[in-house]
Amino acid sequence: MSEYSAWFECINGCPSRFSLYEIIYRCPECGDLLDVRHDLDALRRRSAGAWMRLFDDRYRRNTFPYGSGVWGKKEWVIPFLANENVVSTYEGATNLLWAERYGKMVGVEDLWVKQCGNSHTGSFKDLGMTVLVSVVKQMIAEGESIAAIACASTGDTSAALANYCGAAGIPAVVLLPRNKVSPAQLVQPLANGALVLSLDTDFDGCMALIQEITKERTVYLANSMNSLRIEGQKTVGIELVQQFDWEVPDWIVIPGGNLGNVSALGKGLLMMRDLGLIRRLPRIAVAQAANANPLYQSFLKGFDTFAPMQAQKTLASAIQIGNPVSYKRAIRVLQEFDGVVEQATEAELADETALADRTGMFNCPHTGVALAALRKLVERKIIRSHERVVVISTAHGLKFAEQKIAYHLGRLDGIESKHANAPVEIAADLKVVMDSIKRFADKVRLLEA
Amino acid sequence: MSEYSAWFECINGCPSRFSLYEIIYRCPECGDLLDVRHDLDALRRRSAGAWMRLFDDRYRRNTFPYGSGVWGKKEWVIPFLANENVVSTYEGATNLLWAERYGKMVGVEDLWVKQCGNSHTGSFKDLGMTVLVSVVKQMIAEGESIAAIACASTGDTSAALANYCGAAGIPAVVLLPRNKVSPAQLVQPLANGALVLSLDTDFDGCMALIQEITKERTVYLANSMNSLRIEGQKTVGIELVQQFDWEVPDWIVIPGGNLGNVSALGKGLLMMRDLGLIRRLPRIAVAQAANANPLYQSFLKGFDTFAPMQAQKTLASAIQIGNPVSYKRAIRVLQEFDGVVEQATEAELADETALADRTGMFNCPHTGVALAALRKLVERKIIRSHERVVVISTAHGLKFAEQKIAYHLGRLDGIESKHANAPVEIAADLKVVMDSIKRFADKVRLLEA
Repeated sequence: MSEYSAWFECINGCPSRFSLYEIIYRCPECGDLLDVRHDLDALRRRSAGAWMRLFDDRYRRNTFPYGSGVWGKKEWVIPFLANENVVSTYEGATNLLWAERYGKMVGVEDLWVKQCGNSHTGSFKDLGMTVLVSVVKQMIAEGESIAAIACASTGDTSAALANYCGAAGIPAVVLLPRNKVSPAQLVQPLANGALVLSLDTDFDGCMALIQEITKERTVYLANSMNSLRIEGQKTVGIELVQQFDWEVPDWIVIPGGNLGNVSALGKGLLMMRDLGLIRRLPRIAVAQAANANPLYQSFLKGFDTFAPMQAQKTLASAIQIGNPVSYKRAIRVLQEFDGVVEQATEAELADETALADRTGMFNCPHTGVALAALRKLVERKIIRSHERVVVISTAHGLKFAEQKIAYHLGRLDGIESKHANAPVEIAADLKVVMDSIKRFADKVRLLEA
Repeated sequence: MSEYSAWFECINGCPSRFSLYEIIYRCPECGDLLDVRHDLDALRRRSAGAWMRLFDDRYRRNTFPYGSGVWGKKEWVIPFLANENVVSTYEGATNLLWAERYGKMVGVEDLWVKQCGNSHTGSFKDLGMTVLVSVVKQMIAEGESIAAIACASTGDTSAALANYCGAAGIPAVVLLPRNKVSPAQLVQPLANGALVLSLDTDFDGCMALIQEITKERTVYLANSMNSLRIEGQKTVGIELVQQFDWEVPDWIVIPGGNLGNVSALGKGLLMMRDLGLIRRLPRIAVAQAANANPLYQSFLKGFDTFAPMQAQKTLASAIQIGNPVSYKRAIRVLQEFDGVVEQATEAELADETALADRTGMFNCPHTGVALAALRKLVERKIIRSHERVVVISTAHGLKFAEQKIAYHLGRLDGIESKHANAPVEIAADLKVVMDSIKRFADKVRLLEA
């Protein structure tokens, strides 16, 4: 047995505790979300320095499962899970890229991009899903009769679920509204062998059905209401501080839709502070698409109220969410971290993605939202040019190849494509080609100067 | 100045040596390729154990540029390059995935997949391109007037070139035959700001033109004829041995087209042996698409002859090469490593990709070629079930989303899609959905047992 313990507890402080191996998603008293809580006193028996040394010793090493960015912090995640039930594809420990050229353009030279999408399934969702699927594997090993893990999702969540279930040999089920989703959006769950159910209903109908289904206990719920995923996702904040040799940056900018990601980021950083690994907290900026900005609206009112909205279509499809599950957690984090919320229009996010790509990145549109927000915050001197800033990049740009092509060919509706770069058709003639290269090289040199 | 030196030398042993900062791609005496050679005696002054400790200390750490999988071995790559001219996006150190479920299916339980595509540009080409672009940056810093770096490529090479040039602010140029390439294939060079020239000629015409252009010295050649890239790519073999705590696996299976990759793999491993870090060599299996198999044909004749061929169309597009640049190097490596060559048909590679994906991977078709070859070699008992095998996965499956969808929808010409997994259309009804989930779960359980 582990000397450390953790359990589910209501986010509103209702008194009951529940085992992490219990099939429970909401507080039976108030109906709100559950949080995983850790016995911090037990964790405090190891000193901050000893934790840092332990995490550094494990980082990217070969002893299973501790080389994983998530499971290298296992005592802080699910301390008592049997190692043989950990389903890991060595997630996390993603690159913290120094965005040298882009930073100069924005006016923040100490700018870093945490590339969570440089991964197996191409998004940060791996970090949470490894935890959820591992816990289910443990439950099955202990005799719980779980037939499948299910979610209603068109994007990174279903991709990550199917992938980890594929690795574990556990059936995964994805529920989708028929005719609302293209096969291209489904390529990962299909390839990873999930049962993809295409239903004659809309997205709300799928969500209602999944609530019904998962009441039956034999189908375990993987949607973001399940708080186990936050335990894995919270390692991103710990890891990026570790990558700075345990120095806290001044700002972390993170795109926000369902708001589980910023909640997890805050949770990991608070745990570090509470256990003495860091003394101060960074400030956090959540970046929303202007077309799906309920948190931004709430921020403008000092978080006094929070009103769900009907999200409009945005290129940043994964954050096109008007009624975020984790808004309470997110607001608490922002209040604790002296946080701000900024928004980006469709043109702003598309142009900023393209500009950053030109400096050697390959960003998803959500990262573009974060970068556009960063630019505004720098212009308004909320983020100062000497500060160290980390932008959380949530997915690989390869997931958005069609959108990028449309941008560069000037085919995105209502968007000017300020930084478009289309192929140039010329004759296959040495002089013509050399002239073209020379003009291009002069232009690049001019931009650099 | 570095205490270590390296230089260009003809692969056929012609006597001249050339600086790595010289603009030269072929031996002026015999016209064949050049190799980078290192002063091994100087490198031997540090013991094998000291090299291993140094490489382990640097692995994935934060001191620029040594956290990179390539530049962590800088003394073995380009020892004297100034660190400020290194153009690195922290490439390499990719996951070595234990393919537990898939290994059982193939009959090799100690099976590992080196996921080189879990990276910034989504393919192993980063490893070589960081070296080439860094050397050019150094040359420019020393006053060489290079206006741009150019290649003729439709795939991973142009993506990697554009990306590293984007990071460095050096103009990149990609030459392509008009109407032969879709914008989707070009999304990375376009996004990364390369000049993409679409020419009214075929691929041979582009290659001829690039030879002409790069004769002018102001445009530097990035095609695979340039041997600098091998110096970065060779770290993949060193790194995977390091990931096994410096134990050599029994077999490495690698897909082969232009054959620079297997040449580089062998070069890195030989360097380890020559410097005492390993005592024995693994065996190497090169996997070719049956539609583009000149090395396989040569292998069948004991490598006595090598005949270029007209490659036929293959799903494994990056290895659709009938006249590989690096065939001489590759044959030497195979002879030294007691190597074999195996091939896979279109159906074999597509089905094997899909089967492996079901176990939690997300492979490119080239990896599918390697996996299909592995299966055949196991069936023929050339690879034995107790042996430790590493498969080199060369690119991220996200680059092949359309092909995967076509497979799972049964739309690939002439391919049966044995492991197809299409969406299931059913009514949005609790009982109907639960029945479907239960049938699926039973089927998965049966397959597992």
